[in-house]
Amino acid sequence: MDDISIYPAALRELISVLKQLPGIGSRTAERLALSILAWPPERLEAFGGLVGGLQSRIRSCVCCGNWADAELCAICRNPGRRRDLICVVERVSQIPVIERSGSFNGLYHVLGGRLMPLEGKGPDDLRLRELEGRVAAGGVQEVILATSPDVEGEATASYVVGELKSYGVSCSRIASGIPVGADMSYADSATMAMAINSRRPMR
Amino acid sequence: MDDISIYPAALRELISVLKQLPGIGSRTAERLALSILAWPPERLEAFGGLVGGLQSRIRSCVCCGNWADAELCAICRNPGRRRDLICVVERVSQIPVIERSGSFNGLYHVLGGRLMPLEGKGPDDLRLRELEGRVAAGGVQEVILATSPDVEGEATASYVVGELKSYGVSCSRIASGIPVGADMSYADSATMAMAINSRRPMR
Repeated sequence: MDDISIYPAALRELISVLKQLPGIGSRTAERLALSILAWPPERLEAFGGLVGGLQSRIRSCVCCGNWADAELCAICRNPGRRRDLICVVERVSQIPVIERSGSFNGLYHVLGGRLMPLEGKGPDDLRLRELEGRVAAGGVQEVILATSPDVEGEATASYVVGELKSYGVSCSRIASGIPVGADMSYADSATMAMAINSRRPMR
Repeated sequence: MDDISIYPAALRELISVLKQLPGIGSRTAERLALSILAWPPERLEAFGGLVGGLQSRIRSCVCCGNWADAELCAICRNPGRRRDLICVVERVSQIPVIERSGSFNGLYHVLGGRLMPLEGKGPDDLRLRELEGRVAAGGVQEVILATSPDVEGEATASYVVGELKSYGVSCSRIASGIPVGADMSYADSATMAMAINSRRPMR
């Protein structure tokens, strides 16, 4: 007998939707569905409306591409952020990671992906013209390339630097190396090589 | 800085709703919300509509109180189930647990709770009249009391048996004892006492 066949259709549908979430297996989806079912009607309706309206309520910042409530995102609107520093990321979800590090106070630019020639993803599929426009408008001193430290991320970073060369802006790359707090014995050799080659002088 | 304050309002709301689910902490809620946000609009709308419509789509079986798609639940409608055997449970969610054991082929009756005098929950708050009605209608040979084996569950079971006495129906109680496959050394003393007192002859 199928485990969930005893449930009514709406409950089975809910379980199967929840199972599509990352890290949620059959048992957890079932547990979550049963718990959602026990919610009061007001909360069910509010949750339903919230999910259905997500797409229309969360916009894309016209400047940097971050999630936004309005035309500009909270970071672009913040007068306390440095406007001469732009950090280029692949995806919106990388911005919270950098924000939480507390070590960056400039603006962002979301490329919307990375160069993947084999999958037909070229420069025109990234928000590159928009980045050039921001740099061309002046006032930007430095662009930090924060794409992932792998083959495609490095290629994308190099390409962006090449595109920006004519504007005379400084470009930099985030450091790769042994993660802070990690056990050296478990570092892979590529990371170890990067850590040695990017060593910095101590005084 | 608050971890999620960088997100737009709709995303923060979604995270706070998901955090109300059992076993979902802040980090998981955030991960799930980001993943829901990446869903295509059709799936978002379908999910939203599904949750908002749960209450109206899932009915309560007029006979036993189980979840139902129609007036009667799938179990009450099933002609292959024994109609002379009724298993009394506290909550709807206990039915799947019994169904999965594959050892019961009768009908159910959901009480909708247990007697909790201290919290003001008395016999009139349970679906007791409905159970009496089913037994009085005839054809029921045995009623199995499957309330939890704790103080309130035992009191509820005794009360139900008392109410049914005048109908001349057999009543039985599910067995308590050491869980199958469990290590005897970790059994609590109340369970161990029950297991010894309820011992059965071997041949």
